[in-house]
Amino acid sequence: MSLFRPAIDRLTGYVPGRQPTTGTRVVKLNTNENPYPPSPRALAALQTFEADELRRYPQPLADEFRTAAADTLAIDPSWILPGNGSDDLLTMLVRALTGPGRAVVYPTPTYVLYRTLAGIQDAPILEVPFNDRFDLPTDALASAGGALTFVANPNSPSGTVVEADTLATLADALDGLLVIDEAYVAFATHDAVQLVQQRQNVVVLRTLSKSHGLAGLRLGFAVAHPNVIAGLVKVKDSYNVDAVASRVGAAAIRDTSYTKTVIDRIITNRTKLAAALECLGCQVWPSQANFLFVRPPRGDAARVYRELETAGVLVRYFDDPQLRETLRISVGTDDDHVTLLRALNTIL
Amino acid sequence: MSLFRPAIDRLTGYVPGRQPTTGTRVVKLNTNENPYPPSPRALAALQTFEADELRRYPQPLADEFRTAAADTLAIDPSWILPGNGSDDLLTMLVRALTGPGRAVVYPTPTYVLYRTLAGIQDAPILEVPFNDRFDLPTDALASAGGALTFVANPNSPSGTVVEADTLATLADALDGLLVIDEAYVAFATHDAVQLVQQRQNVVVLRTLSKSHGLAGLRLGFAVAHPNVIAGLVKVKDSYNVDAVASRVGAAAIRDTSYTKTVIDRIITNRTKLAAALECLGCQVWPSQANFLFVRPPRGDAARVYRELETAGVLVRYFDDPQLRETLRISVGTDDDHVTLLRALNTIL
Repeated sequence: MSLFRPAIDRLTGYVPGRQPTTGTRVVKLNTNENPYPPSPRALAALQTFEADELRRYPQPLADEFRTAAADTLAIDPSWILPGNGSDDLLTMLVRALTGPGRAVVYPTPTYVLYRTLAGIQDAPILEVPFNDRFDLPTDALASAGGALTFVANPNSPSGTVVEADTLATLADALDGLLVIDEAYVAFATHDAVQLVQQRQNVVVLRTLSKSHGLAGLRLGFAVAHPNVIAGLVKVKDSYNVDAVASRVGAAAIRDTSYTKTVIDRIITNRTKLAAALECLGCQVWPSQANFLFVRPPRGDAARVYRELETAGVLVRYFDDPQLRETLRISVGTDDDHVTLLRALNTIL
Repeated sequence: MSLFRPAIDRLTGYVPGRQPTTGTRVVKLNTNENPYPPSPRALAALQTFEADELRRYPQPLADEFRTAAADTLAIDPSWILPGNGSDDLLTMLVRALTGPGRAVVYPTPTYVLYRTLAGIQDAPILEVPFNDRFDLPTDALASAGGALTFVANPNSPSGTVVEADTLATLADALDGLLVIDEAYVAFATHDAVQLVQQRQNVVVLRTLSKSHGLAGLRLGFAVAHPNVIAGLVKVKDSYNVDAVASRVGAAAIRDTSYTKTVIDRIITNRTKLAAALECLGCQVWPSQANFLFVRPPRGDAARVYRELETAGVLVRYFDDPQLRETLRISVGTDDDHVTLLRALNTIL
């Protein structure tokens, strides 16, 4: 007899994109990391730790980072909850709000982890397919009646966005909580922080993994009404963010000028890469993220994925009926793109 | 109407011991931190990070730390699962194994988080009181039939231990999983790693917070059969341990000679502090941890706790019917003890 709950035995765990070991020479365009280094101030902050700061438990709410994140959004720190990556916040939300009879709802295709987390929690899962243009299926999402509705905006793997007033309409139509996962919003034209301030049933999630080049550090945060934060704090691990991440993340998020330079460069690279892929006959969806959603000319995405891997270029292929013909390709440096495009020239 | 599950609304979240802000001058004997700094090799490891290591996602199983932890136990790395503190592993265990109809069982008083986590999970909670000598109530624990049975060994707040053969008897009598929480085992005479290798329904948990002076870094690990690890991996966050913690923790755990020196010193301090507290008329339970379980002469623990706080000495008082007359006092440095004992001289 299994020791585990039946839901866990049934579950296929979330499979993260491949992480080659340090020193492996690959062009890594599979997990949407920032191709540029984090702020020099973040690296400098790493040099400042004294023994006592490692020896003692960190502040339970990562005050140093919490204040820094609040300052950059011009919001009170009581509206911010730091997490060990935004995955930690997704886990808290699913645990605190959903379960048997309390559904998780989201449009598909999107971040696969929403499904995994709902499965772990034994919550009903209601998936509403996007159309080909990735317009938000607002009515169907609203009538699904989720305790928790996720909208990734920009969405992954499509890179597409929905407008703020569409999200406001959805929030108004929901009895449950609307979580707008803004992991990629730094590369987009607008965000939904204002919506959080206007409606208590809206939460925005952010991460420093993409925009701030700190995927290795694990740091994200929720923006939510203090009443919602209070409920999430009950389910979070006591010291979920370590002392190092709090200080280094604070330094990174306060360095807004460096961050803007990096983001502008990625947006420029994104435009150039999209044009080059279209020249090769690929279909490329309009992206406001740091990746492109790409259909190779013949729709043979699995083959292209495998042959790129052989050529030393990692991109993301999802084994999902909706995504058989498409790849998600992170925006890299100019050098990364030269290698990618040369390989594609042979493969396509 | 609340957005949260009823179980969450009902719940009082776990309240960690007070963390004074950096720079506050207090003698901090309330959260069992190590009074000595972490290994110089851990601090040196913090200086070695390159931008690329922060920029990229970490290894999902924190390979660098996993291998180091396995090496120190002379066990295969497949038997080790690193976590963001051992709290992260406790959370995984409760989520993966328990729920409605799948009980969490443990002797009390013990680590209060077991109750909080079971409450979040809507799992039945069966608490079996220890007797005054803190002998393990093996039969009552076994007949409770938990999907998950926790035994903290050494126990907190009592500091007491149970023998390995008692734990083996309990494991044999259980259908569910026995988790031996060895957060404080570095200060004890024996551990249960061998039991894990003999019985698939036993998990041992360790943390670097106490023995290695790294509470600020958040790092713990489970020792378990690879089949058990595989189930836990399904519920863990994809990148639960960051790149910094993995490397710094690996350096710390490999520095066994420094760790031994620090632990020996704490054990010496523990003996001296226990003797001094007994001289002041306190009852002190035999401890194999880095703290003492203490009943002040008149059993007025709440008053003593408050007056010590006023005197700048933080100890732990638990607002729990079983613990009204006792305090948990972390073992500190000789200087910490001078301040504590001087204050107690006035207060008792």
